[in-house]
Amino acid sequence: MVTEASPAPVSVIGLGLMGAALAGAYLKAGHQTTVWNRSAGKADALVAQGATNAADIAEAVAASDVLVVCVVDYAAFHAILEPVKDALQGKVIVNLTSGLPDDARGAAEWASGTGAEYLDGYIMSVPPGVGLPQTLLFYGGDADVFAKHEATLKVLGGNSIHLGADAGVAALYDLGLLAILWSSLAGALHAYALVASEKIPAAALAPFAEQWITHVVLPSVKGAAAAVDSGQYATSVSTTALNAVGLGKMVEASKAAGIRPDLMLPIKAYLEQRVADGHGEEALAGMFEVIRSPER
Amino acid sequence: MVTEASPAPVSVIGLGLMGAALAGAYLKAGHQTTVWNRSAGKADALVAQGATNAADIAEAVAASDVLVVCVVDYAAFHAILEPVKDALQGKVIVNLTSGLPDDARGAAEWASGTGAEYLDGYIMSVPPGVGLPQTLLFYGGDADVFAKHEATLKVLGGNSIHLGADAGVAALYDLGLLAILWSSLAGALHAYALVASEKIPAAALAPFAEQWITHVVLPSVKGAAAAVDSGQYATSVSTTALNAVGLGKMVEASKAAGIRPDLMLPIKAYLEQRVADGHGEEALAGMFEVIRSPER
Ligand SMILES: NC(=O)c1ccc[n+]([C@@H]2O[C@H](COP(=O)([O-])OP(=O)(O)OC[C@H]3O[C@@H](n4cnc5c(N)ncnc54)[C@H](OP(=O)(O)O)[C@@H]3O)[C@@H](O)[C@H]2O)c1
Ligand SMILES: NC(=O)c1ccc[n+]([C@@H]2O[C@H](COP(=O)([O-])OP(=O)(O)OC[C@H]3O[C@@H](n4cnc5c(N)ncnc54)[C@H](OP(=O)(O)O)[C@@H]3O)[C@@H](O)[C@H]2O)c1
Repeated sequence: MVTEASPAPVSVIGLGLMGAALAGAYLKAGHQTTVWNRSAGKADALVAQGATNAADIAEAVAASDVLVVCVVDYAAFHAILEPVKDALQGKVIVNLTSGLPDDARGAAEWASGTGAEYLDGYIMSVPPGVGLPQTLLFYGGDADVFAKHEATLKVLGGNSIHLGADAGVAALYDLGLLAILWSSLAGALHAYALVASEKIPAAALAPFAEQWITHVVLPSVKGAAAAVDSGQYATSVSTTALNAVGLGKMVEASKAAGIRPDLMLPIKAYLEQRVADGHGEEALAGMFEVIRSPER
Repeated sequence: MVTEASPAPVSVIGLGLMGAALAGAYLKAGHQTTVWNRSAGKADALVAQGATNAADIAEAVAASDVLVVCVVDYAAFHAILEPVKDALQGKVIVNLTSGLPDDARGAAEWASGTGAEYLDGYIMSVPPGVGLPQTLLFYGGDADVFAKHEATLKVLGGNSIHLGADAGVAALYDLGLLAILWSSLAGALHAYALVASEKIPAAALAPFAEQWITHVVLPSVKGAAAAVDSGQYATSVSTTALNAVGLGKMVEASKAAGIRPDLMLPIKAYLEQRVADGHGEEALAGMFEVIRSPER
C-alpha cells in the first residue's frame, strides 16, 4: 500500500538540459522515475541511475499519475501529449516548459478537456540549481492540486510557491524577474564598459557594484513597489528632473568613452516624458506611469 | 596647540540639500565649521547649530585649510573659486560636486595652478545618508593628500574610498553605479508594469524580486566581471541565443500587456548582435563586447 509518505511515481517528459536535471532530482529523492525523450540516447545516464526508459510516450503516461513535462516550448508540449490525450484522465500534468502567460492558459484549457489536472510552473534557476532547498519555482493552477502534490513538487526546489489559480500567473512572474535580470545585468555591463574605457578592470568596480546593489538598488526596488501601488511619488531626496539631467550626462559620458549609450536612451526618454508631464519634482519610481501607458 | 586628534576646521561652500548635510555632519563631529552659500538664508539653521557664516567667499576660504565644495555643477565651482584663486595656496579643496570625469580633471588642473591640493569626490548616497559609517564616498586625487585628511573625510561617510591618483576616477565609478541603479530600477518598474497589467500589485512581486536580486542578479553581475576581464564567455547553463529568444518573447509579452517595451529593445538588439557575430552559444556577459564597440 502506498502511504502518504511514500514518494509518488513520476514520469519526466523531455530530457533536455533541464528535463534531465528534473529526472535526476526525482531519482535522488527516491521516486520511481520513468523518463521519455523524443530523440534517443538522452535517457542513458538516467537509466544508469535507476530510471525506467519508456518505450513510447504512452508508456511514460501510463507509468505515473504525475507527469512532469519540460520541453523547448508549448508547441512541443502539445505535439507530445495530443496523441495520448485519451490516456490523461486523472493524471496531473506539471508543465515546466517556458512560454507566455497565454500559452500557459491555453495548455491549461486543453488539459482540462482531457480530464487531467494541470499546474503550470517556472523554474527560476539553471539546471544545477534543481533540487536545492532555496531554489525558487513559481506555480499557477488549482490550489488544491498544488497542495496535494506539494511534497512531490518541492523535490525540484524547496522554495516552490503557488501564486494563484490562473495558470498564466507563473509565466507572468517569470517575465517580471527576467526583466529585472536582463536590465540589471545590461546595466552592470554598461558600467564595466565605462570603467574599461579608462583601462580599469571590471573586478575593481564589482565589489562596489555589489555593495550598491545591496544597499541602494534593493531598497529602491522595494520602495518603488510601495510607490507604484499607492500612486504616491513624493520624494525629498532624488527628483525625476535631476535624474533626467543625470541621464543626459550618462549618455554624453558613454559616447565620450566610445561606448554605446543605447541602454540609457529609453530610461532617459521615460524620465523626460515624466518631466514633460509635470512630474519632475516626483520620485524616479514615477517612470512606472510612462511604462504602463504606451498610448499618449 | 592643534594635535593630530583635534578635528580640523572645515569650510563648507554651497549649502544646497547636500552641502547643508555635509556641514551638519561636521558640526555634529565637533569640527569648527564655516559655511558659505551664494544666496542668503541657507546658513541660518547651521549657524543655530554652531556654524560660522562667512560674510563672503574670501572669508570662507581664509577660515579653514580644508575647503569642502558642493554645488550644482563644475561651472558653479569655477564661478565661486576663480575670484579667490590667489588665496588657495596650501589649501586642500575637496570637491563633492557631480559632473563628468573630464570636469573633475579640469578642476584638478585648475586647482594645481593655484597651489591648492585637490581631491574630487562622489557621495554615493542621498543627504540623510551623510555621516553614517556605511555611507560610500569615492575619491580620486593624490593618495598622500587623501591619507593626510582621511579622518576629516570620513566624517562624511565611514566608507570613504581612495580609488586612484586620477581626479576623474570617482566620477567614472559614480557613472558606473548610476548606470546600474537606473537600469535595475527601470527593469523593476517594467516588471511591476507587467504584473499590474493583470491587476497584481507590485507588492506581490517585490519579495520575489528581492530574493532574485540577491540570489541571481548579484552573482550574475559578479560573474560577469570575471568574464569581461578575461574575455572568457563560455557557459554551460544559459546561452546568449536562448536569451535572445527570451527577449523577443519579453517584447511580445510587454506589447500584449499594453506596456512599453522600450527598455527591452536595446538589450534584445545587443544579444541579437552577439548572436549574429557568432557568439550565440556563449554567456550573456558577452553583451559587454557589443556595448564597448560602437563602431562595427
Ligand atoms: N536550461 C535552463 O537554464 C532553463 C531554466 C529555466 C527554464 N528552462 C526551460 O526548460 C525548458 C527546456 O529547456 P532545456 O534547457 O532543457 O532545453 P534543451 O536542452 O534545448 O532541451 C529541449 C527539449 O525539448 C525537446 N523538444 C524540442 N522540440 C520538440 C518536439 N517538437 N517534440 C518533442 N520534444 C521536443 C527536446 O527533445 P530532443 O532531445 O528530441 O531534441 C529536448 O528534450 C524550456 O522551456 C526552457 O525555457 C530552462
Ligand atoms: N542631493 C543628493 O541626493 C545628491 C547626492 C549625491 C550628489 N549630489 C551632488 O551634490 C551637488 C549639490 O547637490 P544639492 O542636492 O545640494 O543641490 P541643490 O540643493 O540644488 O543646491 C545647489 C547648490 O549649488 C549652488 N549654486 C548653483 N549655481 C551656483 C552658482 N552659479 N554660483 C554659486 N553657487 C551656485 C546653489 O546656491 P544657491 O542656494 O545660491 O542657489 C546651492 O548651494 C550636486 O552636484 C549633486 O549632483 C547630490
